[in-house]
Amino acid sequence: MTSPLAPKGGFPNVPPVAGVELATVEAGVRYSGRPDVMLARLAPGTTMAGVFTRSATRSAPVLDCQAKLGGAASGPAAILVNSGNANAFTGSAGEGSVEAICAAVAAACDVPEARIFTASTGVIGERLPHDRITSKLAQMSATLAPGGLFDAARAIMTTDTYPKGAFRVVEVGGVPVTIAGIAKGSGMIAPDMATMLSYVFTDAQIGFDALQPLLGRVNARTFNCITVDSDTSTSDTVMVCATGVAGVNVAGDEAFEQALEAVLLDLAHQVVRDGEGATKFVGITVREAADDADAHKVALAIANSPLVKTAIAGEDPNWGRIVMAIGKSGGAADRDRVSIRFGDVLVAERGWVSADYDEATAAAYMKNDEIDIIVDLGIGTGSATVWTCDLTKRYIEINADYRS
Amino acid sequence: MTSPLAPKGGFPNVPPVAGVELATVEAGVRYSGRPDVMLARLAPGTTMAGVFTRSATRSAPVLDCQAKLGGAASGPAAILVNSGNANAFTGSAGEGSVEAICAAVAAACDVPEARIFTASTGVIGERLPHDRITSKLAQMSATLAPGGLFDAARAIMTTDTYPKGAFRVVEVGGVPVTIAGIAKGSGMIAPDMATMLSYVFTDAQIGFDALQPLLGRVNARTFNCITVDSDTSTSDTVMVCATGVAGVNVAGDEAFEQALEAVLLDLAHQVVRDGEGATKFVGITVREAADDADAHKVALAIANSPLVKTAIAGEDPNWGRIVMAIGKSGGAADRDRVSIRFGDVLVAERGWVSADYDEATAAAYMKNDEIDIIVDLGIGTGSATVWTCDLTKRYIEINADYRS
Repeated sequence: MTSPLAPKGGFPNVPPVAGVELATVEAGVRYSGRPDVMLARLAPGTTMAGVFTRSATRSAPVLDCQAKLGGAASGPAAILVNSGNANAFTGSAGEGSVEAICAAVAAACDVPEARIFTASTGVIGERLPHDRITSKLAQMSATLAPGGLFDAARAIMTTDTYPKGAFRVVEVGGVPVTIAGIAKGSGMIAPDMATMLSYVFTDAQIGFDALQPLLGRVNARTFNCITVDSDTSTSDTVMVCATGVAGVNVAGDEAFEQALEAVLLDLAHQVVRDGEGATKFVGITVREAADDADAHKVALAIANSPLVKTAIAGEDPNWGRIVMAIGKSGGAADRDRVSIRFGDVLVAERGWVSADYDEATAAAYMKNDEIDIIVDLGIGTGSATVWTCDLTKRYIEINADYRS
Repeated sequence: MTSPLAPKGGFPNVPPVAGVELATVEAGVRYSGRPDVMLARLAPGTTMAGVFTRSATRSAPVLDCQAKLGGAASGPAAILVNSGNANAFTGSAGEGSVEAICAAVAAACDVPEARIFTASTGVIGERLPHDRITSKLAQMSATLAPGGLFDAARAIMTTDTYPKGAFRVVEVGGVPVTIAGIAKGSGMIAPDMATMLSYVFTDAQIGFDALQPLLGRVNARTFNCITVDSDTSTSDTVMVCATGVAGVNVAGDEAFEQALEAVLLDLAHQVVRDGEGATKFVGITVREAADDADAHKVALAIANSPLVKTAIAGEDPNWGRIVMAIGKSGGAADRDRVSIRFGDVLVAERGWVSADYDEATAAAYMKNDEIDIIVDLGIGTGSATVWTCDLTKRYIEINADYRS
């Protein structure tokens, strides 16, 4: 069943990105009857940037990507992703699987192993049957073709209820540059440096020394501002691949940065909209905090509070629980300066219920699919917004009744 | 419906504590048809110690108690607690309510206002109708009597499904000393310095300078080691009242400390056993951590993970989620040294699934009402144990369908 919060228009009509070829296949790693592996081959002048989970128990593919990143300024590259098995907590067998896959991709795509980046997403702690993947590589490389992001987005899904894609075309120096990306993620979403899997492709030209910090900045304002359940994945990976085929250098270009941020934010919101069991898409903005970092901390404490999330599921304007979450966040707060709004409804003003507060108005607002919570701490100029979803019985069903 | 994890024997047969008189009343603060206020009057030589929530948005009664604590070495004292309304985030009106209640208790019980400690637990952000309480004080003071901890435990309940009490009698210098306490708590349980409400009475003699640090130590090993939902209350209060009537000084006595810890641990476990929607009582022990603080951090990350808690609810030995929680905890960990046990079942050994692991054996273990998870990090000598419960649909029902 597709999430009720899925984008109304379905998967966007993503154009091909010059220099990117894609293929998918049904390898039967864990799922059957659906594609579960995607392969991307990238043009000879491609720059790769990436941000990854900071989990202390991160997966073998993440460790391998981190070791390879930045190793070569630019060159041909390939990405291979499987769903169904995370190849995490699999010891030396996990590293062996990554090596076997990289060797097979190198042979099939004529790309050096040092430029092959893999990811695995799914169950943690089970050995990856990598021969199911390597045995399909000849078939996949034979079907590599431009376009195909929709199929790629479907191949990397786990508990996702819809494939996620986004794109922007931006003009730089009179040349149109395309940025298109896909993402997967639904549970175990609490960003720490990066979150879930996302691959963004562009035909822009940009060196690693410019692209990597750009991704860091943009990621901090997008994927690092979402949470579904406060649980950080062992496989979080966001990579941006710039093929350079459009022939225009975008280093330092503001329009490019804005377009890239728009694509990442679109994908990040789609992940939250597919949060396991979600029925409400919730934006939480904290203003007047001691600084931006404190604002982010308070916003995340609200976003991750089970009591706040269940109140939203119950369409209850229970602002007392917002107060509780502010209090426990560790961020600086003064009870008597806090104001809280649900959308335009001022519920609490400087430490107590607003004089104009009408519970019926607030309750009516909570019936919306999209809820905005705005907290003014009244002590500084820091601000931050994070996005999350509500916590429903369906989340429990998904995670208690099935192994994911 | 009483929690399926409630102590089998029901409320213990708690003896009266010399120097303690109790009364309860139906004041109709929020609930009707049940006692919702308790009053305790303590003998003239009583020492009071307390630990409180560190929430930045703590309630007016907590702020008042913190200001009063330690103000007098010993003397008569009184405690008044209401359920149904937390008197938190109620601005200057909240402080006014505390003052009004303290003045009324002082008049009714002949105890100085500086020695009156109040607490309120229930809905946050609504004005406390304190006149409903003060108007009952003459009636309450007239019915003060020894014993009565069972009624007191019932009067302070909110979403609790059973009253919580515990006691120990310990001999110090040949004299029997009684320690008896009550607690309330079910949701919004994530200790930070103290948690929920608990009042422990003893007829032992002990000065404030010895009792306060003793409570701090014992609290750190008991109430600060439980979590239901990671949400820290604005009203957390634990107080120990030593009336001195037994005439034996217990400062520095190890048997007394052990008995006090046993009472607090018993009460803390009862709070977890009454965790909203709980069907499993879970002990999480982390060993071989860098130090005790790191062990506590890792154990709490596991205990608070929604994915771990839902897996336990589903009786799924999903140790991959334990690995995830270790990874995100911020504690030092090395993936390839981690071992995990469910009870006696070794599931993962030094970074990967155990050679002897049999899923059916682990799945059978998960059907128990009480689950022990033991994690060996393999990097140091620190250890800690925390207790929690599972996360079920019933938690969502309780918190999404009703305002608590």
